[in-house]
Amino acid sequence: MTQDLRIGIIGVGMMGADHAERVARRISGARLVAVSDPDTARAATLAATLGGALDGSPGAAPDGRLGGVRVVEDPLALIGDAEVDAVIIASPGFAHAEQLMACLEHGKPVLCEKPLTMDTESSLRVVEAEHKVGRSLIQVGFMRRFDPEYARLKQLLDSGELGRTLLLHNVHRNKTVAPTFRSEMIVRDSLVHEVDVARWLFGDEITRITVHAPKPTSLVGEGVLDPQLAVFEMAGGAMADVEVFVNFQVGYEVRCEAVAERGSATIGLGVDVLTRQAGHWGGAVPDDFRVRFGLAYDIEVQRWVNAAARGEIDGPTAWDGYAAAAVCTAGVQSLQEGRPVAVEMVSRSEVFG
Amino acid sequence: MTQDLRIGIIGVGMMGADHAERVARRISGARLVAVSDPDTARAATLAATLGGALDGSPGAAPDGRLGGVRVVEDPLALIGDAEVDAVIIASPGFAHAEQLMACLEHGKPVLCEKPLTMDTESSLRVVEAEHKVGRSLIQVGFMRRFDPEYARLKQLLDSGELGRTLLLHNVHRNKTVAPTFRSEMIVRDSLVHEVDVARWLFGDEITRITVHAPKPTSLVGEGVLDPQLAVFEMAGGAMADVEVFVNFQVGYEVRCEAVAERGSATIGLGVDVLTRQAGHWGGAVPDDFRVRFGLAYDIEVQRWVNAAARGEIDGPTAWDGYAAAAVCTAGVQSLQEGRPVAVEMVSRSEVFG
Amino acid sequence: MTQDLRIGIIGVGMMGADHAERVARRISGARLVAVSDPDTARAATLAATLGGALDGSPGAAPDGRLGGVRVVEDPLALIGDAEVDAVIIASPGFAHAEQLMACLEHGKPVLCEKPLTMDTESSLRVVEAEHKVGRSLIQVGFMRRFDPEYARLKQLLDSGELGRTLLLHNVHRNKTVAPTFRSEMIVRDSLVHEVDVARWLFGDEITRITVHAPKPTSLVGEGVLDPQLAVFEMAGGAMADVEVFVNFQVGYEVRCEAVAERGSATIGLGVDVLTRQAGHWGGAVPDDFRVRFGLAYDIEVQRWVNAAARGEIDGPTAWDGYAAAAVCTAGVQSLQEGRPVAVEMVSRSEVFG
Amino acid sequence: MTQDLRIGIIGVGMMGADHAERVARRISGARLVAVSDPDTARAATLAATLGGALDGSPGAAPDGRLGGVRVVEDPLALIGDAEVDAVIIASPGFAHAEQLMACLEHGKPVLCEKPLTMDTESSLRVVEAEHKVGRSLIQVGFMRRFDPEYARLKQLLDSGELGRTLLLHNVHRNKTVAPTFRSEMIVRDSLVHEVDVARWLFGDEITRITVHAPKPTSLVGEGVLDPQLAVFEMAGGAMADVEVFVNFQVGYEVRCEAVAERGSATIGLGVDVLTRQAGHWGGAVPDDFRVRFGLAYDIEVQRWVNAAARGEIDGPTAWDGYAAAAVCTAGVQSLQEGRPVAVEMVSRSEVFG
Repeated sequence: MTQDLRIGIIGVGMMGADHAERVARRISGARLVAVSDPDTARAATLAATLGGALDGSPGAAPDGRLGGVRVVEDPLALIGDAEVDAVIIASPGFAHAEQLMACLEHGKPVLCEKPLTMDTESSLRVVEAEHKVGRSLIQVGFMRRFDPEYARLKQLLDSGELGRTLLLHNVHRNKTVAPTFRSEMIVRDSLVHEVDVARWLFGDEITRITVHAPKPTSLVGEGVLDPQLAVFEMAGGAMADVEVFVNFQVGYEVRCEAVAERGSATIGLGVDVLTRQAGHWGGAVPDDFRVRFGLAYDIEVQRWVNAAARGEIDGPTAWDGYAAAAVCTAGVQSLQEGRPVAVEMVSRSEVFG
Repeated sequence: MTQDLRIGIIGVGMMGADHAERVARRISGARLVAVSDPDTARAATLAATLGGALDGSPGAAPDGRLGGVRVVEDPLALIGDAEVDAVIIASPGFAHAEQLMACLEHGKPVLCEKPLTMDTESSLRVVEAEHKVGRSLIQVGFMRRFDPEYARLKQLLDSGELGRTLLLHNVHRNKTVAPTFRSEMIVRDSLVHEVDVARWLFGDEITRITVHAPKPTSLVGEGVLDPQLAVFEMAGGAMADVEVFVNFQVGYEVRCEAVAERGSATIGLGVDVLTRQAGHWGGAVPDDFRVRFGLAYDIEVQRWVNAAARGEIDGPTAWDGYAAAAVCTAGVQSLQEGRPVAVEMVSRSEVFG
Repeated sequence: MTQDLRIGIIGVGMMGADHAERVARRISGARLVAVSDPDTARAATLAATLGGALDGSPGAAPDGRLGGVRVVEDPLALIGDAEVDAVIIASPGFAHAEQLMACLEHGKPVLCEKPLTMDTESSLRVVEAEHKVGRSLIQVGFMRRFDPEYARLKQLLDSGELGRTLLLHNVHRNKTVAPTFRSEMIVRDSLVHEVDVARWLFGDEITRITVHAPKPTSLVGEGVLDPQLAVFEMAGGAMADVEVFVNFQVGYEVRCEAVAERGSATIGLGVDVLTRQAGHWGGAVPDDFRVRFGLAYDIEVQRWVNAAARGEIDGPTAWDGYAAAAVCTAGVQSLQEGRPVAVEMVSRSEVFG
Repeated sequence: MTQDLRIGIIGVGMMGADHAERVARRISGARLVAVSDPDTARAATLAATLGGALDGSPGAAPDGRLGGVRVVEDPLALIGDAEVDAVIIASPGFAHAEQLMACLEHGKPVLCEKPLTMDTESSLRVVEAEHKVGRSLIQVGFMRRFDPEYARLKQLLDSGELGRTLLLHNVHRNKTVAPTFRSEMIVRDSLVHEVDVARWLFGDEITRITVHAPKPTSLVGEGVLDPQLAVFEMAGGAMADVEVFVNFQVGYEVRCEAVAERGSATIGLGVDVLTRQAGHWGGAVPDDFRVRFGLAYDIEVQRWVNAAARGEIDGPTAWDGYAAAAVCTAGVQSLQEGRPVAVEMVSRSEVFG
């Protein structure tokens, strides 16, 4: 068993707090050891919560630490800290360049939320600086590549089963965004995910982009161009169109349809990968229960572990096992005798009083 | 930060090995410390694999241990081991009663795969023994209760939004089973899950059961009654019908439709909870990206942690961040100028040679 | 071109009036010539409406007829009328036996709404009487056999592609029924359709039936058993379970899932025939536009015919054709020149003033 | 009852023959009286087939007519024929202008397959000529407006329930087209339908069009640009993107997603109108059986009429009615007695020998 990776997180707004909880509670092989945020009180509250026991009780706080998670005021100090093995950057975009450079300097692996930096030039400087270090330390938070649906779509397209991919039709919709969200942010904060999706799925660079602005919805502030319709042209001749609509009112919806020479495949419909191929539309029926219920087993065991650490259980009891046995015994009898069979059980009160 | 829960697993066949990998690799706050199986070689191989580092390289094996996970020949010795905090029982059903009694004796929390025991009487004895201990130590592996779809179905039914639940229509299909699978096993090993589902969703006991045997599929051995059609009658008057078909050929399929006074809800169609209510069928659109992509973030961070522990990254690179910045910059310009804009980027070779 | 079949309809309640409009307006090769109903005023109103022109204006009423459709008070006189070639019986079930016998006597083809008659014995007498006539004159209104989804399901099952059919899971739900609807009527008026569906799909007789009564929904009157759960056992060993729920509140829903040796097929989901087969679920993509839009062409031409009979059109105009030409001309130019092209059109006022 | 409209059809290739069969067999209130085609033999064969009885037997051919449908060599003579009330033009596009002018001259209603004419100028001349006649005689064959799904989509959008419509995402795919199909034909023959759909749904003119040509599929001939991606800009600021892909290999697929201020609605998925609205996706459950089974009733009665004209029936027999009665009687008994009940029926041989 290797040592847990000690992680520090810079920025504990919505994304950073989400990552902090993830590392502290759900990620195996890692340990949250430090957080940094200009809002020190927010960082301290989070540290107290996550440094605590799994049941949410406040953690022991030996040696001045808040339950095992330290609050470090200066993000660069966090990066340099000898007890931090790796860093997650969830600070505002304008702070990324300096923090990334510090990570490179200290040779620390870093997971940086998008954008890498605020403009093309500074991004290029980061690329060049990492290249000088000589090894990959920076991962950018384009997390769609890790979504199981996107991953299966990529796998299907790369398999060649549908022929060469010709077009993408993508949709990116938010329920609403803050009134401060301006037209350019729709490109930089939302469309940017679709930029990465297109580059990744096609394995190709985008060479030309057109962003259309239809007449905006009346449900946004004056001057905000929402929705937008972007068209990407790839170096190899493929294309993608993308609707970005950040005040859709309905909810959050991200869809991607890949159109290839011999069929199409769509994700984001809530039905995994939906294909159209050879006169047929539809999806896959899994081969066995591990595919269908794998996540249920993970949740079962995680909740059992959490409860057992408190000396409890959190799931079906021995009584449930007993009741099931009684029903199945009657069921076998019914099957053998071809008639309804009453289930014989003691009453709960006979056992539990 | 609490100490990790030290877990021993008894039985490392398909289910046990699956649990072992789960505890070692995916469960936070737990540590696999011991395995036991009559097939000692199989146990040793598993211990070597899972005791290793996260990248799959063989783990260090200090003090005679296989990479941190010990092989304990005697399951009762594993249960009694002072360095085992909690036990997972994945041994054959006939061994459960004795192993459960030993867990109760040592006061150890235990997650026991179904069945609790092989017959109603021994199950009742286990219930009584646990009652004497005075606290819940035994959890039975009816893991469907933890499946997110079942959990949301239960929540919907309990909310009362659809009125009282009147009927369940359930389907349980396996692709194929081993030729040794006999008619009674369809009841005891497969239908048993539906027994728990009906009891749990209705919050009620089953009082009568009929198991029908239609003319079997020709794709099973002589004398095997497959499919079967069971009808449950609940104490409160509700009912459930269940098809169990363990040689369906197509794949694995588990469905549950709850019919209530003001609508119905179905899971297992691959579209989460599908409701019929007030002249409308359909499902939910999530409110935000954390619902849609929460799992993607977990996978992203877990893979980054695993890679960082090896000094690598496993995801989008700084170059991907740079390319996205370049496209978005051109996109903003296109939006502002109302025309296609070429994307300006250096070539990879200018940076990487 | 053969002469139109002259049809008389007995009973013009909901079903009969529906058939009357169907024959008068949508059926080719037939002509509604007479209606009969104890409620003479209702019959006269219907005759006046349907005897009129296609645009709904009251029809000419030469020789004492209401617009070409006569009202005949005595249903047996209608059956015997020399100008009635064929009869549709939509009277209450208790009247069927006598009316059917009259049709047989006069050798008139008859389409009889279900039930054939009110009890087994009188139904058998009708069968025997028709057998004596020596040719088939009576068709019973089990119209599901003509539903395109059921027809395709039957075709699929009969093709043998899925192997032998083992089980049906059927659902029959009404939004609500009149408070006078009693438990037995659920069997005789609703379940009866499922009886025919099972017999027809299996091509086999039902030899045993169980009708279960779960605790009823609270949204029905005292003593009404709704929903009901029926189990059919076929002579050949296959089985069917059927939920009938006539106060479902949501709407009307009829579903049928056939489970066969190598897959299953479901209709009634609103997606035509949905199959599960060989690791895949889904449906068919049609080969060409005639499958997809055949009905649209029928509607287009029917509406055009109806409008043309009034000297009008009812659809896209010449202006729509002109506008499409202008856009396509610009589109071809855009394709050839690789740039946006403005559409050149005169304004409507230049033409129409 | 009004007289049937007497219809002549010009051009009996695929579309014209389809219309001829439609008018002769499925349209109520119309009668096919004449066909014209340069391929006289083809026209004669069709006339012989469709002039026959409904059972397909050759029709009587009094006074030198082929079963009631005349073959008229000169299309202009057909238009001028006193016994032709209305005309369907399904000739090649280049012939439309002259034939339309003739229809206007004779004051005959005409249903003209798209395109109206081959170019913008001649289309405008037709519009002007009809305007001079002073009443609408020309309907263009944009039949999607009559498709029930499109009609419901239009109705939903016009209701204002979703707010103003902002964007359309359309897809038009054919399985394959003839090798002679050139890039411009994709615009003029396929995209033209989408042009009309956009104009009709928005109730607005298209002012600018861009047709993009991604790198073509390898499954077309040299130089054919397939698929194409068109972007329409409407006068009012709304936009539409359309994929046209006429060699999709999979089958025929036409989809339209309308994105509005408060939700979206999609047709062409094979599930009628699928909406996304207020946190929910899905479709409608019909209120009653007339919506679900209306078409089944039409088919039932049409087939019964066709069979009755031959002295036969074509559907469930009296025996089917008898068997249903016997099963329901047993069902009522089972419901009352709470147990399985055997179905009592005579055997078929007792009746039929």
